[in-house]
This record gives sequence, structure tokens and C-alpha cells, in this order.
Amino acid sequence: MENKKAVILLSGGLDSTTTLYYAKNKGFKCYCLMFDYGQKHKKELKSAVKIAKLNKSQFRIVKITLPWSKSALTDNKTKIPKNRDVKKMKADIPVTYVPARNTIFLSFALSYAESIGAFDIFIGANAIDYSGYPDCRPKYIKAFEKTANLGTKSGVLGKKIKINTPLIKLTKAGIISLGESLKIPYDLTWSCYKGGKKPCGICDSCLLRQKGFEEVNKLKKSR
Amino acid sequence: MENKKAVILLSGGLDSTTTLYYAKNKGFKCYCLMFDYGQKHKKELKSAVKIAKLNKSQFRIVKITLPWSKSALTDNKTKIPKNRDVKKMKADIPVTYVPARNTIFLSFALSYAESIGAFDIFIGANAIDYSGYPDCRPKYIKAFEKTANLGTKSGVLGKKIKINTPLIKLTKAGIISLGESLKIPYDLTWSCYKGGKKPCGICDSCLLRQKGFEEVNKLKKSR
Repeated sequence: MENKKAVILLSGGLDSTTTLYYAKNKGFKCYCLMFDYGQKHKKELKSAVKIAKLNKSQFRIVKITLPWSKSALTDNKTKIPKNRDVKKMKADIPVTYVPARNTIFLSFALSYAESIGAFDIFIGANAIDYSGYPDCRPKYIKAFEKTANLGTKSGVLGKKIKINTPLIKLTKAGIISLGESLKIPYDLTWSCYKGGKKPCGICDSCLLRQKGFEEVNKLKKSR
Repeated sequence: MENKKAVILLSGGLDSTTTLYYAKNKGFKCYCLMFDYGQKHKKELKSAVKIAKLNKSQFRIVKITLPWSKSALTDNKTKIPKNRDVKKMKADIPVTYVPARNTIFLSFALSYAESIGAFDIFIGANAIDYSGYPDCRPKYIKAFEKTANLGTKSGVLGKKIKINTPLIKLTKAGIISLGESLKIPYDLTWSCYKGGKKPCGICDSCLLRQKGFEEVNKLKKSR
């Protein structure tokens, strides 16, 4: 396993950071890929860069524009929802959904992986404590993996490309517990969709993060 | 069918131009998507813009960078192959292959389509007279379509997204015959990979184009 290369989609948030540490712990040489896609919380990229450097991992920031996106994450006219019920979040697809975002991110990761001779791509997608984004579900990831293997030279030559999603079935508390066991400095990560000076505390991303830490702390106290 | 929107991947070459005219002829309102991806033959974009304007179609040019690509189409250190045997081209994947190019292009098309309420994407992929690119094959396209429907809000809500490939099983001569029936001004299109003042006549793209026109002319004479 040692020195096997992997491309890691790193946003600078809690999930993707945990994914990076997980991959590193598994012995992968990590190449982080970050995206400046016009997100309001571009601030997350600073976290991503800090985290990649701390891990002595290579990283690249890819700038893309999605001028057509009406998502609350990219469009100033669409407000980021506040105080949604974390238990009901995954029932609907919220306005923070960015059309085809993970398909775009994974396609660049695939191009990068193939070019550097990596056959593993890691993405911190989660389908338990999440906002109901369709491109975080296991069956979507599986379909992308199949597409990746049919659409690349690597795939055709029989070198299977794997899309790794170590967090996909974990709760947020489970992700944080995993991260704590890997000694992740979570204070360096950035989750808030607003990208202000401090986390807003009321967007989906802040609320899910809080829920995770609260649950982890409860667990610790009950031990 | 009238006024149904479609996103067309338009490079400015013979195949994608034929695809645009085909979609228009089927009654679609066409939104052309073009990519400046660091290709040596960036000149093709001028053709693409001319053709979109001629058709009174909307268009967008998306700029992306693939700094890792060692493809002969993007990397100055890798030479574009000359005088390959057109009959044997599809047996190997040549150095002009750009890692995951169609996956990237289709993922942007998907994002654009979903944002404007289009459920049809057209791509001029061809798996008969082509250079053996894995991401031009019908099974790849089918896999991407499945991914698209699993990874988008539209797909989840039951509005099926279709990846249309009207040319996929046509010979180059068949494509040109179709185009002539649609009165396409092929002199406006640009196929050459080199992007010089005049087409080089010896790259894969020039050779396949010549083969197509030669076959069409032979057919005409034999009638």
C-alpha cells in the first residue's frame, strides 16, 4: 500500500479533512484537489491549503466558473437557509445544492489521477448527516466510478479506478470520532457556508457540525 | 418538441457542428457550450462562436485548466502524431487523448442544463471513424447518463436527463452526408489539431475529415 498515490477532494471542511487524514493513515501519498468555484465561503480554501501543507501533501487549486448556478452557495441573490431542522435536512434538496458539483469535482479528480498514475480518488461524501444532496449518495458514487472506468485510458487498460468514500455511512459524530483518533486539528477546518469572520452557527453546515460535536461530547461524558 | 431546450457541446469541428444542426432541426432551442481548456487548436473556438451566432443559438465559453495533462493537444512537449493510418486509428488510444475530457465537458453541460431547465445534452461523440478515445464509446455515454440522473436534483425528481449522441454510429462520410442534408457550411468548421493558419492535413483529425469527404464524393460520383 505504501507510496500508492491518491487524489483527495479537499474543501477545507470537517469531512474532507477527515478523509485526507484517513487516506494518509492508510499509507497513500496524497494529492489534494481544491476548487475555487465562486463559493461565498471561499475562505474554506485557506483552511484547505493550511491542512494540506500541515500534512506535507501536494495540492492544486482549480478555478472554475459556474455562471449559471442559482445555488445559494454561489449566487448573491439566493440566501443561505437558516436554522433548518438537522433531523429533516436530508428529506429535501435545499437551495444550497450546486448543480452537478460533485460530478464536476470528480471529473477533474479523475483527470488529475489518470495523469499522475493514481488509481484512487477520495471524496468525503456523506449520506447520513447531510443536506440531501443527490451527488452524495452511494449509488451515485458507484455510477460515477463505473463511468470513470469506461471513460479513461486507465480503465480501458484494466487498471481499475476506485472512488473511495470512507465517511459515506458514518454519522457526523462518527466522522469526528474517527478524526479524533487520527489527531485531526479540527480548529483549522472551516465548514460555515457564509464565510464570515466567525462561523454563523445557523447554516446547514454549521448546524450539522455542531450536532456532531455535541453527540461526541455526550458519548465521552457517558463513558 | 418545440422550444425544448438542449445544451450542445460545440467545439467548432465537423462533428459537433453537425450535432448542433441536427438538434436544431429536431426543434430544440440550443445552448452551446464551448471549452477553452488549453488546447493548441484554440482557433476552433472562433469557428464555434461563428457557427453558434449563425444559428442564433446562445453560447458560453468555459475556461478550464488541466495543468496535469500530458496530452499532445495541451502539452507543448508532446508532439501531435502525423500521418497515422486512418483504418488503424481506433485500435489504440493515442497521445492526443486528454484524460477525462468528455467527463469534464459533460459534467459542465449537466450543470448548465440543470440550471436552465434543459433535459437534453447533445455531444458529437463518434465511435466509428475516430481516434480510439474511450470516452466516445456508447457504453461510456450510457454510464455517464446514469450518473447524471443519480447525481442531480432533476434526475432525483424524475425528470430524466438524456445524453444524445446522434453521430455515434455513423461513419465520417455518413456524418457529412447528414450535414449536407442540413445545409451545414462546413467551410466554417475547424478540425485540425494544430490550429495553424491552414489545416495541417496530417493529424488524425485532418485525416479523418479528408477520408469522410473523399468517401462522400465517391458516393456522389457513383450515383
